[in-house]
Amino acid sequence: MTQVYDRVAFIGLGLIASSLFWASKRAGLVGEITGYARSAETRDTAREIGLCDRVCDTAAEAVEGADLVILCVPVGVMGAVAAEIAPYLKRGATISDVGSVKADVIAQVAPHVPEGVHFIPAHPLAGTEHSGPRSGFAELFDNRWTLIVPVENADRVAVARLRALWEGTGALVDEMDAEHHDLVLAVTSHAPHLIAYTMVGVADDLQRVTDEEVIQYSATGFRDFTRIAASDPTMWRDVFLSNKDATLEILGRFTEELFALQRAIRQGDGDHLHAYFTRTRAIRRGIIEAGQDTDEPNFGRGAKK
Amino acid sequence: MTQVYDRVAFIGLGLIASSLFWASKRAGLVGEITGYARSAETRDTAREIGLCDRVCDTAAEAVEGADLVILCVPVGVMGAVAAEIAPYLKRGATISDVGSVKADVIAQVAPHVPEGVHFIPAHPLAGTEHSGPRSGFAELFDNRWTLIVPVENADRVAVARLRALWEGTGALVDEMDAEHHDLVLAVTSHAPHLIAYTMVGVADDLQRVTDEEVIQYSATGFRDFTRIAASDPTMWRDVFLSNKDATLEILGRFTEELFALQRAIRQGDGDHLHAYFTRTRAIRRGIIEAGQDTDEPNFGRGAKK
Repeated sequence: MTQVYDRVAFIGLGLIASSLFWASKRAGLVGEITGYARSAETRDTAREIGLCDRVCDTAAEAVEGADLVILCVPVGVMGAVAAEIAPYLKRGATISDVGSVKADVIAQVAPHVPEGVHFIPAHPLAGTEHSGPRSGFAELFDNRWTLIVPVENADRVAVARLRALWEGTGALVDEMDAEHHDLVLAVTSHAPHLIAYTMVGVADDLQRVTDEEVIQYSATGFRDFTRIAASDPTMWRDVFLSNKDATLEILGRFTEELFALQRAIRQGDGDHLHAYFTRTRAIRRGIIEAGQDTDEPNFGRGAKK
Repeated sequence: MTQVYDRVAFIGLGLIASSLFWASKRAGLVGEITGYARSAETRDTAREIGLCDRVCDTAAEAVEGADLVILCVPVGVMGAVAAEIAPYLKRGATISDVGSVKADVIAQVAPHVPEGVHFIPAHPLAGTEHSGPRSGFAELFDNRWTLIVPVENADRVAVARLRALWEGTGALVDEMDAEHHDLVLAVTSHAPHLIAYTMVGVADDLQRVTDEEVIQYSATGFRDFTRIAASDPTMWRDVFLSNKDATLEILGRFTEELFALQRAIRQGDGDHLHAYFTRTRAIRRGIIEAGQDTDEPNFGRGAKK
């Protein structure tokens, strides 16, 4: 594959930055990738595992001369990080991010973007329940979507270049405006995460059922929730706080529907339940046909010994 | 492995009966297994794929002479099926089931159990989102728990024999009383299923987000919910209706906790969220250490191409 950028800098070296590094190397998309993480321990780990061509001890050093700087930090600190690196950005460079929320990140970052620097927010819709520099892998973005959320009057050449990078990692790329992105993600990601966290917390809390029982008997459905509820706490705290309105809107709809199903249970309305459960099967089929999940039973766990 | 029963009959030939057949054959646990399903199409499929040594056209024929009869039908029809087969049960035989709810099944079935027949309810805590005779596989119960829920004054020899069958399929076996079983399952299975069904229904319903978007962008968490929400509608309708009290109790606790987290989001209480999300990670670790799930990212999906 052709090289897309000469110099790329990652600020933050967790799951996404790490996967992006390995995916970029796999396809030869970038000449040199520099990296910076606030924690010395993370930088040491990165150096140990060869994550980044050069790990820098300051953000300023990492972004110096970079054609593309990607903020890979929790959503809550995007603004502070942008302010810190702004004076060191090269004229003509692009600054992007991988945050799960877009309107709030744009509000935080845009004021700090210097004249002559392109700001092109993005969000790769991929991840796992693991976090940190060791958790990345080159295949994370394969056949998953990355949404680019260009701000008003975005430079189309700079957008096309960022798109080429993401496509080079194996991702499918689409563009979307920030408000719609935040609503779509509230439905497909933020509300499901909060719900999973809640259910796991309730199980952990219940005095009459022991944690040991919850753990032993989790194969009946619960363990799928625990995977989601094992996701990075800092990242998710920031997501909920910065996509507050859309998340609360979807949770409101969810609660309304849950109450209706609870009432159907209480009243013994089997037809309502059956019709509802039949409808939800179709969505699953759509996801499998779209290549976004495996059709193997239990995600393929069942076949493993 | 030693043969545990000479003759076993399955009433109902879905995922569980089918898996139990293949697991029994794998380990040589049973001399002859007969089977019956109400639908002629299911019986034809069973004959086509070699599911059961003999597929019978009536339940009476299937259970005749059987040492063990296992009811593998939806929870809502256990009583009716028990009434139908009761006159044909051999003296000294055991009747068991695989229902996901125990108190209600016991209430339905016990009145029909003839003098001299042992009734030993059981529940294998294993399954997939697929259903029907073709969905079974021998490994389904490997290292998963089966709970035996003996009724009062159960014959210990008959219980030990049923336990030996389940252990022979690869399952871990424990005993529990019916009420506690139903509460534990409400937490680990029934409430999570209802929540997943609800969330998938909400996503499908939302006018401002298209189904296509929900499907394309599902890798962000939502697709885990859709797997659960693709489970058999008839089975699950019956589970909720027959484990009404425990399910509604857990859903009440869930809603309470969800409201507290929603309030934390609304008020910007990041510490509360972070502490909650940190606690739930520990449960996941417990499940992995107990061998009840894989530690591979995304259940191992991420590594597949």
